[in-house]
Amino acid sequence: MKNKSISSIGEFGLIDIIKKEFSSKTNNKNIVVNIGDDCFCFKSNNNNIFVTKDILIENVHFKKEWTTPSDLGEKAIEVNVSDIASMGNVKPKYVFIGLAIPKTMNELFFRNLYIGFKKACDKYGIIISGGDTVKSNIIVISITLIGICNNKQIVRRDSAKVNDLIGVTNTFGNANAGIELLHKYGLNHKYTNNEFFLISKQNNPKSRLKESIILSSYINSLIDSSDSLYTSINNIIKNSNKGANIYIDKIPISHNLKKVFKKKKKQLNFALFGGEDYELIFTVSKSKAKIIKKLIPKITYIGNINLSKKIEYFYNGEKQKIKYSGYKHF
Amino acid sequence: MKNKSISSIGEFGLIDIIKKEFSSKTNNKNIVVNIGDDCFCFKSNNNNIFVTKDILIENVHFKKEWTTPSDLGEKAIEVNVSDIASMGNVKPKYVFIGLAIPKTMNELFFRNLYIGFKKACDKYGIIISGGDTVKSNIIVISITLIGICNNKQIVRRDSAKVNDLIGVTNTFGNANAGIELLHKYGLNHKYTNNEFFLISKQNNPKSRLKESIILSSYINSLIDSSDSLYTSINNIIKNSNKGANIYIDKIPISHNLKKVFKKKKKQLNFALFGGEDYELIFTVSKSKAKIIKKLIPKITYIGNINLSKKIEYFYNGEKQKIKYSGYKHF
Repeated sequence: MKNKSISSIGEFGLIDIIKKEFSSKTNNKNIVVNIGDDCFCFKSNNNNIFVTKDILIENVHFKKEWTTPSDLGEKAIEVNVSDIASMGNVKPKYVFIGLAIPKTMNELFFRNLYIGFKKACDKYGIIISGGDTVKSNIIVISITLIGICNNKQIVRRDSAKVNDLIGVTNTFGNANAGIELLHKYGLNHKYTNNEFFLISKQNNPKSRLKESIILSSYINSLIDSSDSLYTSINNIIKNSNKGANIYIDKIPISHNLKKVFKKKKKQLNFALFGGEDYELIFTVSKSKAKIIKKLIPKITYIGNINLSKKIEYFYNGEKQKIKYSGYKHF
Repeated sequence: MKNKSISSIGEFGLIDIIKKEFSSKTNNKNIVVNIGDDCFCFKSNNNNIFVTKDILIENVHFKKEWTTPSDLGEKAIEVNVSDIASMGNVKPKYVFIGLAIPKTMNELFFRNLYIGFKKACDKYGIIISGGDTVKSNIIVISITLIGICNNKQIVRRDSAKVNDLIGVTNTFGNANAGIELLHKYGLNHKYTNNEFFLISKQNNPKSRLKESIILSSYINSLIDSSDSLYTSINNIIKNSNKGANIYIDKIPISHNLKKVFKKKKKQLNFALFGGEDYELIFTVSKSKAKIIKKLIPKITYIGNINLSKKIEYFYNGEKQKIKYSGYKHF
């Protein structure tokens, strides 16, 4: 075996190693959704118990200087709720907060972080149930969220069907545009309202749990867009063994993003390859797509599923070549 | 509110803030064991689901130079199994591994770490069920372990009874003595067999899950000794609203530790205030104590429970003054 560095293997290479070599190969009848989806799910009598886990590292996933401690706490919970929302009609219930903090951190920062955790938890009825608080030179927030589903409305990423429409819950690219502004000007710059909107989408995103509960009775596959619209669609088609056509002129982009970044190519880059929007991406039959659009008017259909095993892009009916330019985890 | 630093509040101050201000105050009938014990436990139909979470930070909880990646992985699982063992007859089932690693880390280190995770998991029948792998400048290992108990043999730390004997599963102080050797000489020193035993107790500890399952039908209260024998007894009496007499001449100390560190005071300091032994500490009625001793001969009784609300130490029947000199988390 060559002794490669982690960065040359990449995030998906590491996940592959874990899945193939270290996860369970036994056909355990209690495992409902195995490693590789947004959540793991096991059966406990009539309940399905969902578990998701997330680590946020200072200066990798956030910078103290670019956010407030309460926004940071709120976001840490919301992104995990988004993983729960990616599974269908699941109720987030218990959260465990692992926190590594410098011993020089002041009490106010700690309290405000917890005020953020609590605010998001209260919104969803999640109970702060435990965790671990340790010292470190950098801040690490490790969230484990447990959700419960006592019905059959679980939706996975591996069950898209040919001719399904690809639907999305709202606009894309805002969060990534927001981080670009923070990179350039920091938090304490005099921003326009449109710019501030983009920053708030980066610092204070909201999960689409409500929408997920409505969608779950109609759709065939589901994922959130934590890692970008492109990555999410790619995950759906890879796991479902299908392909997709994307109509890039249909991808919804906020008027705020359009005002702040005027170049179309830049807008599309944010929307297609920018992470952290936490919108839902789903596939659904044409007939049910109409019903959903009435229930959640903000939904847009941006493409459809086929057998091609790849993503092809179209603009005004013409095929386009688009190169991946998103975030690399390693 | 004064804006103190985290180090002046201390670990238990932080836990108090979380428990009093941010955890759930509602009387949720599904919560079986709330925040503050080794595990949180909620009811799901007839099952009790236990959750424990732990963060290990490079250069705070371990040093790459002082251990091997597979020992590190194994230990990360064992210490969480120990939290499950602290709750009685509970079966550890699903583990979620959050890992932050430098992108320059080589593949072999990553694989060996996972070989260690897997080795410990296979021993207990635990399934590696998911997690998150992210980049960071330092290694962070965040483990969430879920255990299931479908009977009533849960034992807490808050239920010690007056006149209970205090029992322990084996010797104390080895792991702390081991880390002192590593501090002095590092890993690649030519150690004697006795010294090497102490280092292996630091680097490769084993949980007492088997013993816990046997104990659970007899005992009144239970905890593990991750933070030291003293801290564990203190946690039992505080949570049970009781006191304890400890007969320090009864505290079991390995012959290896006695050979390597010859001074009695030093030995006692390791045994009483040294962390990371992961032995079990329990309280049990006198009559049942005899039965247990037959089932698990290695058990020693080192004290008893009273109403004094403090810990008092005795040596050959004489009261002793002993000052706390253990590890401070912040």
